[in-house]
Amino acid sequence: MNSKIDNLCINTLRVLGVEEINKAKSGHPGIVLGAAPIIHTLFTKQLNIDLENQKWFDRDRFVLSAGHGSALLYATLHVAGFGISIDDLKNFRQLGSLTPGHPEVFYTPGVEATSGPLGQGIAMGVGMAIAEKHLAAKYNKPGMKVVDHYTYVLCGDGCLQEGVAMEACSLAGKLQLSKYIILYDSNDIQLDGEVKMANTESIKGKFEAMGFSYFRVENGNSVDDINKAIALAKKDNKPSIIEIKTVIGYGSVFAGDSCVHGSPLGAENTELLKQTLEYDYPEFTVDKEVYEFYNRNVQMRSSEKVVEWNKAIIDFEREFPEEYNELEAIMDGRIEFNKDAMPKYEVGFADATKSICGHCVKEISDQLPQYIGGCADLTKTTNARGANGNFDSDNPTGRNICYGVREHAMGAVVNGLTLHGMRGFGGGFLVFSDYLKPSIRMAALMGIPSLFVFSHNSPMVGEDGPTHQPIEQLTMLRSIPNLNVCNPCDANETVYAFDSAVELAHTPTVITTTRQKVPTLEGTSYEGFMKGGYIIKPEQGKLTGVIIAAGSEVSLAIEVAKKAGKGVRVVSMPSMFLFDKQSKEYKQSVIPEGVKTMAIEMAATMPWYKYSKNVYGVDRFGISAPGSVVASELGFTVDKVLE
Amino acid sequence: MNSKIDNLCINTLRVLGVEEINKAKSGHPGIVLGAAPIIHTLFTKQLNIDLENQKWFDRDRFVLSAGHGSALLYATLHVAGFGISIDDLKNFRQLGSLTPGHPEVFYTPGVEATSGPLGQGIAMGVGMAIAEKHLAAKYNKPGMKVVDHYTYVLCGDGCLQEGVAMEACSLAGKLQLSKYIILYDSNDIQLDGEVKMANTESIKGKFEAMGFSYFRVENGNSVDDINKAIALAKKDNKPSIIEIKTVIGYGSVFAGDSCVHGSPLGAENTELLKQTLEYDYPEFTVDKEVYEFYNRNVQMRSSEKVVEWNKAIIDFEREFPEEYNELEAIMDGRIEFNKDAMPKYEVGFADATKSICGHCVKEISDQLPQYIGGCADLTKTTNARGANGNFDSDNPTGRNICYGVREHAMGAVVNGLTLHGMRGFGGGFLVFSDYLKPSIRMAALMGIPSLFVFSHNSPMVGEDGPTHQPIEQLTMLRSIPNLNVCNPCDANETVYAFDSAVELAHTPTVITTTRQKVPTLEGTSYEGFMKGGYIIKPEQGKLTGVIIAAGSEVSLAIEVAKKAGKGVRVVSMPSMFLFDKQSKEYKQSVIPEGVKTMAIEMAATMPWYKYSKNVYGVDRFGISAPGSVVASELGFTVDKVLE
Repeated sequence: MNSKIDNLCINTLRVLGVEEINKAKSGHPGIVLGAAPIIHTLFTKQLNIDLENQKWFDRDRFVLSAGHGSALLYATLHVAGFGISIDDLKNFRQLGSLTPGHPEVFYTPGVEATSGPLGQGIAMGVGMAIAEKHLAAKYNKPGMKVVDHYTYVLCGDGCLQEGVAMEACSLAGKLQLSKYIILYDSNDIQLDGEVKMANTESIKGKFEAMGFSYFRVENGNSVDDINKAIALAKKDNKPSIIEIKTVIGYGSVFAGDSCVHGSPLGAENTELLKQTLEYDYPEFTVDKEVYEFYNRNVQMRSSEKVVEWNKAIIDFEREFPEEYNELEAIMDGRIEFNKDAMPKYEVGFADATKSICGHCVKEISDQLPQYIGGCADLTKTTNARGANGNFDSDNPTGRNICYGVREHAMGAVVNGLTLHGMRGFGGGFLVFSDYLKPSIRMAALMGIPSLFVFSHNSPMVGEDGPTHQPIEQLTMLRSIPNLNVCNPCDANETVYAFDSAVELAHTPTVITTTRQKVPTLEGTSYEGFMKGGYIIKPEQGKLTGVIIAAGSEVSLAIEVAKKAGKGVRVVSMPSMFLFDKQSKEYKQSVIPEGVKTMAIEMAATMPWYKYSKNVYGVDRFGISAPGSVVASELGFTVDKVLE
Repeated sequence: MNSKIDNLCINTLRVLGVEEINKAKSGHPGIVLGAAPIIHTLFTKQLNIDLENQKWFDRDRFVLSAGHGSALLYATLHVAGFGISIDDLKNFRQLGSLTPGHPEVFYTPGVEATSGPLGQGIAMGVGMAIAEKHLAAKYNKPGMKVVDHYTYVLCGDGCLQEGVAMEACSLAGKLQLSKYIILYDSNDIQLDGEVKMANTESIKGKFEAMGFSYFRVENGNSVDDINKAIALAKKDNKPSIIEIKTVIGYGSVFAGDSCVHGSPLGAENTELLKQTLEYDYPEFTVDKEVYEFYNRNVQMRSSEKVVEWNKAIIDFEREFPEEYNELEAIMDGRIEFNKDAMPKYEVGFADATKSICGHCVKEISDQLPQYIGGCADLTKTTNARGANGNFDSDNPTGRNICYGVREHAMGAVVNGLTLHGMRGFGGGFLVFSDYLKPSIRMAALMGIPSLFVFSHNSPMVGEDGPTHQPIEQLTMLRSIPNLNVCNPCDANETVYAFDSAVELAHTPTVITTTRQKVPTLEGTSYEGFMKGGYIIKPEQGKLTGVIIAAGSEVSLAIEVAKKAGKGVRVVSMPSMFLFDKQSKEYKQSVIPEGVKTMAIEMAATMPWYKYSKNVYGVDRFGISAPGSVVASELGFTVDKVLE
């Protein structure tokens, strides 16, 4: 049986959460009531954090993958003293409040990742656990554990049905991420009704097959049982899932019913709830004892670990100053990048930009220990390979992650790595960016510098045909707010694209590269690139027209311009994201109003109409044939464009 | 040990496949050499088809989920007599050939689904198996098995790492699709190297946990062992996976090496291969015995089943003429739809269009037995619910599919259902269309009338915040070629959107609906809707401006127009796909050149620049706050737009 104070704390979280939701007239009380004992146990018995230094690098990470449980998280962060006030709770889901509908990282203290789209949190947690394992292996020294923490993820039935979660867990099992622990709020109910309407699989069997340890807590109200299971999971040398049987909407008249998932209880049912819980406090009131208990059992309990760490890091700094400097840069998010060391290419040189990608990733990895990543089983063709060998339980200092054919998990793992102070990257074919679009969106929404490298960036892919030829993917990506999508035209612009990825701290970057060789062009420049669009071939004499292009079509545009007349200017526009940020004057100077314009890209036309009424693109699916035949069939030859 | 003729056949497939790839200088010999015994066994011992009536409804379905094995499939289809000639094989991956880079349905005879993007075939197969189970339960009568066939999927390691496959298999297990059989070409190699670099899970454990039977064939060259395993799987009352251990690139000098996955062997190594296989025929030559063997063991073996079926269907027609008529419509892809019976709404009525969706799906389901589908655990909020109760092993005549929180598998299952003559549909929130984008693309590429219904179609979602508020999703969807994306403005346009979905036979449709109430507008029309864009509020007197809008912003546009002056026209543009198909004259008559225009939609602006230089949209992420507050913050009020 729980102690009286544990129960008081749990009921406080429950009722606070319900009250937040009632006040907002919106939210998800089901998980608040069911999962409160889980989060209470984790925070008061296990989670190591430092409220005085909330970004303490060696804190345990907690990700609420079931982001709709935000009201519960905010209630917990409030009583734990993260700096969320009762007024913040009262403003749950209101404009500008610290307590938005779903948790938002870098916005609400104590939130480690934005969550809500199901499955993403589980997979981001895997990325965090990879980062921890890597950094621990790299920097810990005898007697100096400078990186040593756990990643906990709380999820429900929904998250575990998502493919992205299954991919990520399969990877976590393979990599033996023993400090990755899933707390599974298992209540047999999902939005449409009973879980068994849609799912009857054995979670135990599935996770054990993936290399996890499985623990089960039959009584999800028992703090002791939950705590014991977490303690066992921590000791275990595999990643763990703890299935904790709970009751959705516990204590309310709708307990066990899916209707309580996403609808406020309302005043009357909240009164009944409080009677059932024997919880007799006015609205939004927390007993002093609860604050005291949390202070003692969160901050004070953690302080031992904090003190140890502070000692270890001082020793580490003294004994290993160089390595300390590296780790400190990671901890502080400091990037010391010498872009002058990046490769440079002369006019006359020609190569596929996917090869240039390999050189760039290598140079960046050499300079910056933050960069860690790899490909979804396309390393050999995209050349996006991390340094120091494959990251694995045998070689945790490796920085090449073999994600497997798990594009979606790759996207979320990249985000998890990046949230943990690394610079995660992932790679694949552009057409399959579709598979990880939800995670790319999350990176953009969180404003983190995740990097995605996609080769085979146009129908010039050739023989593999329409399933492998991107058409609308650039449109899909460019339409995501806060995403730096780069479609570089040649080797040098590819280098600049990587420069931009390193330099943008609050924006993820996508770089697309060609399968086919492209010539190195005159007129590219770093400064131009950083403005997103610039004059790569000036007109001679009076300006008669402007051709705007990106990617491999810039060289085509230059050929066309030469034939079209002296007055034709060519603009290379590798990043619409960067171009749109420029002043009106600059944009006007590049593409003056009133001049005839045309845009060319071997991709869907949609993004270009903003810049030109005349767009030469591909608004149909691709063709299975050799690349040069495809180009001709789709009209991408000098003569056809000239027409 | 295999019989001599089996070996000859298998080696013929191997060498033909390798020769196709050599000639094309492009393709994937690894799977050709490794998996030839699997496809040979399936086709000659088990698969029931009818070459004289290749679209015979009761044929077994075979989906090559590992679409990169196309050369092997084409070789098999050639020797089996599907009408693919040696010349077609010689033109592998060339412009206009019957043998494109990856299999394309409705293009190459014998191809049941377009495949290539990994995992999709596994999940489409699940859709086909659902269709079979449903139709069998509905139409079979004692002594008249009119629907009784198996769905086979051939996949490799890559497919099984994909989340979409895991989601689909979890669903297949839940639904006990006993006639769904995965043939797993298990060769321990993927593109980047050994599978164990990326994956060490137990496929057996995982699939058994999901409700599958697992069979294993240790010697992937043994026709007998493979055949016995398939026979066992067929008898079993669960879906099955047969893990068949093979050697990638078998017989070649690169056997067992990942380099053979995607690179042609070339002349010299092909000679060595032929020596190893003791296969001594000139290039592109097939022994007469092979053709004879296939004729006997594919067509003639199947004919018993064909004859039985022909008898059964005649009996069925005679005894159950009404049900026969229904089934015949499904078999022939005939849609008999009375759109006049669809609901109609009067000006003055107001409701969320997500509610209208429920009425439409109900009416269509009542009229058309083809419609089967449901939601990814959002049935209660999207109202996209199939008829006749939940499809399940207890109730296989049910047409509501509880997909679970498996959006991606839902997309592919919808496609599988539709490929099988049904009209599959799926539903969810618009923002989560991201999760199934790869499958929506596949539907568009295949040109099948899959239907996707997405509610909560703008930031008016409100309190759930930016993770749940769609911004760029309409852009993503509209940029997919051959996709009818409908963003209806009111109840009546929602009805017309469903009409268009029913009527378009070769184009998938996406319909987005509002969470919030919208007024029923004057001026909507079916004819206008079918043109994609039309004048919903004409100007009075001289035309001074045109406001174009879609979705819930049409009513806002009308309010703005009223205040902006008599001469302002409002155009409702629910489907850019349909509008772009209209004549230049029509388009000009709706949006005349030279007139001031403005486009309004509470979504990313990108798609609108084609129609107007001035676009009023949302190029940032959403806000967590009540819907009306969000609208005001994002500037979607009459006064703010007027400015």
